[in-house]
Amino acid sequence: MELPTGAAAYHHWTKDALLKTHRRIQPYIHRTPVLTCQTLDRMSGASLFFKCENFQKMGAFKMRGAANAILCLDDARRRKGVATHSSGNFAQVLALAAKLLGVKAYIVMPADSPAVKKAAVQDYGGTIIECEPSLQAREDTLRAVVERTGATFLHPFNQENVILGQGTAAVELLEEIETLHFLIAPVGGGGLIGGTALAAHFFSPETRVIAAEPRGADDAWQSKRAGYILPQTNPQTIADGLRTSLGDLTFPIIQNLVEKIVRVQDSEIVAAMRLLLERMKIVVEPSGAVPLAAVFKERESLKGKRIGVILSGGNVDLKALTREFGD
Amino acid sequence: MELPTGAAAYHHWTKDALLKTHRRIQPYIHRTPVLTCQTLDRMSGASLFFKCENFQKMGAFKMRGAANAILCLDDARRRKGVATHSSGNFAQVLALAAKLLGVKAYIVMPADSPAVKKAAVQDYGGTIIECEPSLQAREDTLRAVVERTGATFLHPFNQENVILGQGTAAVELLEEIETLHFLIAPVGGGGLIGGTALAAHFFSPETRVIAAEPRGADDAWQSKRAGYILPQTNPQTIADGLRTSLGDLTFPIIQNLVEKIVRVQDSEIVAAMRLLLERMKIVVEPSGAVPLAAVFKERESLKGKRIGVILSGGNVDLKALTREFGD
Repeated sequence: MELPTGAAAYHHWTKDALLKTHRRIQPYIHRTPVLTCQTLDRMSGASLFFKCENFQKMGAFKMRGAANAILCLDDARRRKGVATHSSGNFAQVLALAAKLLGVKAYIVMPADSPAVKKAAVQDYGGTIIECEPSLQAREDTLRAVVERTGATFLHPFNQENVILGQGTAAVELLEEIETLHFLIAPVGGGGLIGGTALAAHFFSPETRVIAAEPRGADDAWQSKRAGYILPQTNPQTIADGLRTSLGDLTFPIIQNLVEKIVRVQDSEIVAAMRLLLERMKIVVEPSGAVPLAAVFKERESLKGKRIGVILSGGNVDLKALTREFGD
Repeated sequence: MELPTGAAAYHHWTKDALLKTHRRIQPYIHRTPVLTCQTLDRMSGASLFFKCENFQKMGAFKMRGAANAILCLDDARRRKGVATHSSGNFAQVLALAAKLLGVKAYIVMPADSPAVKKAAVQDYGGTIIECEPSLQAREDTLRAVVERTGATFLHPFNQENVILGQGTAAVELLEEIETLHFLIAPVGGGGLIGGTALAAHFFSPETRVIAAEPRGADDAWQSKRAGYILPQTNPQTIADGLRTSLGDLTFPIIQNLVEKIVRVQDSEIVAAMRLLLERMKIVVEPSGAVPLAAVFKERESLKGKRIGVILSGGNVDLKALTREFGD
C-alpha cells in the first residue's frame, strides 16, 4: 500500500520519526507487556498477541501521544501550558504528562464524563472546565480557554506528534513479536489506528492492519467507503472512547494503509470485555475490547493467523462495569 | 533461619529439588509476568513486584504443584488416575494437569464451590463428586472415591511434590528481580507460602518471608504463636482459598522460615482487590489480594523496601465480584 497523499503528505511520516518519537517518550511511558492466552487462542482459532496498553500509565495508550506532543513544544509555549477537550482518557493523560513535564494543563470535559476520569485529571493537578456533551460545546469552550490563557491546544488525535506517539505501541509490539499477519486496533478519531498503520508500514510491511469500530459509531467505516470524512453524528455505543469523528490527518492514513474496518455490536464488545476479565484476568475498557470483538467477528478469515491486538485502555468506571455484568 | 526439623526433615527440601521441579513442570505452566505499578508504589511507599499467578494456567499458582505431583507418579499409578478434594482452584488445576498428562481426575468438591470453578473442572474432563462443605465430609467422600477407583490421592498442599511445585513461582520471581527485601504470599493450607519460603531460603537467603492471612481464618497465625497446629474451625472470610488448616508438612516450614504472619480484615482484602482492578487493571481473587492488603497494613515497617508480592490467583466469580463492588 501507499503512503497517504494530500494533507498528510506534508507531514513527517517516516520510520526515523517514529524511532525518534519512541526514544523521546520512553522516560515517560511504560513499555507495556505483550500477553497471550491459550484459552482465547483456542476460542478464536488464531494466535493472539495482546499489547496491554490498559497497563500503560493512566491506563491508556494516549499517554504516548500526549507525552510526545508536549515534549515537542518549545520552552515559551510550555510556559503557557497546554489545553484540550476530551471525554476521558486524553484528558487524564494530558494532565499527567503535563504534570511530569512541569506544564499547566487546561482540560475541557463534557459534564457526563466518567467520574473516575474527572477525579484522575484533578489528582494530576489539571484544571477542568466542564461543558455540554457535544462536539460544538467542547470546541467553543476550548477556544475560550485558549484565548484566555495562551495555552497551546493539543488535539487528542488529529496532530502529527500525537499520531506518532500513539504509533509507538505498535512499534514495540512489532519489535517483540515477529511475523504478525495482522495488527488490529480500535478506531475513534484515528490517532491510534493511524500510528499503528504507520508503524506496520515502516517496520513490518507484510503485516496487514485492520481497524475495529463499534457499529453504533461507524463513521470510519462509512468514511472509508465514501472516500471522504463523514462526521459521526449521534453515536450510540458503550465504547465511549470511539464516539468521535476522524480528522483530516488521520483519515488519509486509514484510507491508504488500513486494509479494512470491522464493525461490531455493543453486545459483542461486552462479551469481549468479559472474556478478557474472566479468561485473561485483565480489565479492559469497552473501547479497548473492540479489537478482540472484531477478531471473533472475523473468525473465519483470521483462522490460523498471528494477530497483534492492541488493548488500548483499561479505564473502566467500576460501577458501570458492575452494571454491565450484573445478572 | 533454620530448615524445619521433625516430619519435614525427612523430605527433600533442597535447592536442587526446586530446580528440578521447575525444569519438570516448565512445559505445562506459564512463566507468569512480574508487573509493577507506580501508583501502588506511591500509595504503599515501597517498591512492589507483583508475580502474576492470576495469569497462570487455570488462573492460579496451584497449576504448578498439581503438574509436579502428577509428573512424579509412576506409570502404574497414573493409569488409575488421581483424586483430591478442593473448594476450587486445586480442583480446576488438577483436572487440567491430569488432562494434559492423559490421566483421569476425580474431584471431590463442596456443593457451595463457585460455579465458575465447577464448570472449569467439567470443561477439563474432570469427574466431580459433590459433598457437604465441611472438611470431614470432604475427607470421607474422598476416601470412598479412592477405595472405589484406586486413584492416587493428591493433597492440595500437604505433599512434598506439591509444595515444591508451588515454590517455583518464587523461584522465577527471585531469578528475575534482584535483592528483594521481602517476599509476601498468602497462607491457607501452607503449600504456597511453604514453597515460597523454601525458594527464598535457597535462592535469596537475605529475603525475609511474610505470610498474609485473613483475620477471620487466622489459624496459621495462631498455630505459629502456639508452636503447634491449631486447626481452623468456622472460618469467616471472603478469601475462600484460605479457609483451610495447615498440614504437618507445611507447618514446620512456616514455623522456621516465615518471619511473621500479617492478618488483614475482609474489608482490607476487598480494598486491595479494588486497587488491583482499578489501578493495575488486573483481576485478582480475594485470596490473591490478601498479600497486598498486608503490605498496606505493614506500611510503616515496609517503607522504602523492595517487596515481592505473589498474586496467587484470579478466579473470581464475576457475579460475586459485582456484588462486592456494587454500590
